[in-house]
Amino acid sequence: MQMSEGVEWALHSCLSLTWAEQGEAVTAAKLAALYELPTAYLNKQLQALVRAGILISSSGPRGGFKLACDPGQVTVLDVVTAIEGRQEAFRCQEIARKGPGGRANVNYREACVASQAMRRAEMAWRRELAAQTLADLKGQVESRQPRTPELTRQQLAKP
Amino acid sequence: MQMSEGVEWALHSCLSLTWAEQGEAVTAAKLAALYELPTAYLNKQLQALVRAGILISSSGPRGGFKLACDPGQVTVLDVVTAIEGRQEAFRCQEIARKGPGGRANVNYREACVASQAMRRAEMAWRRELAAQTLADLKGQVESRQPRTPELTRQQLAKP
Repeated sequence: MQMSEGVEWALHSCLSLTWAEQGEAVTAAKLAALYELPTAYLNKQLQALVRAGILISSSGPRGGFKLACDPGQVTVLDVVTAIEGRQEAFRCQEIARKGPGGRANVNYREACVASQAMRRAEMAWRRELAAQTLADLKGQVESRQPRTPELTRQQLAKP
Repeated sequence: MQMSEGVEWALHSCLSLTWAEQGEAVTAAKLAALYELPTAYLNKQLQALVRAGILISSSGPRGGFKLACDPGQVTVLDVVTAIEGRQEAFRCQEIARKGPGGRANVNYREACVASQAMRRAEMAWRRELAAQTLADLKGQVESRQPRTPELTRQQLAKP
């Protein structure tokens, strides 16, 4: 089971956008250059963040991407879900229905003890991701590496 | 991100083995027939459970698979890990190293705030799975569907 590398790219892109000049849109190419990522593939992740309402995009000569709202209102779960989708990692195929004592009219996604055990864990994972916002991550970077915001701004301001 | 269907198969196979006649080994074909699964592919999952020390296998005319230990000693995490491996779902590629203020000598798998956020969630997921044993799941089935153990035994006993 492996998560797409787009999750890491999206989290760092969002963080970088929190440090961009107020009101300035940043192109996918500039965000990609920050981390030496392929622009076209990063652009796909950024478009997914737009569809999820985390970023807004604009076109034109000063176009690009901006955060759609306050970093305190975007959780890590929001970003992960934007990239990975809402489906659970464990997808119950309801094999219990065919097993001994299985019944045709039971929804085993809800009723099966294996499915419930897996869901409890997935809920714990989601809760943990939902408890952390972009503002939390931003604050952690700023306290540990105080120069990162200014260095990011400088790199993004380069023509 | 999607987990292999082998996890569901492995959990149900382990549960069925808790209800098999004491000391009897069960073939992959019989376990597969219980849930109408493809024997060869289920056999791969069972072999993974053997490698993880959850099952033991024996060959010969009365050969097959048995639980290697008490169901109370096997957690759901053990089963999931046997099938999915130990690697984390989020695999930090350390893109922060190339980002503004990144340093060559830092292990960003440990130091990056994004990686830490993802790991906290993964630890919560693991904790939840580790808190549930096969004995717990077995007990839940037995209290909700008291006929399942006997029906399982009967089907496994068929020649």
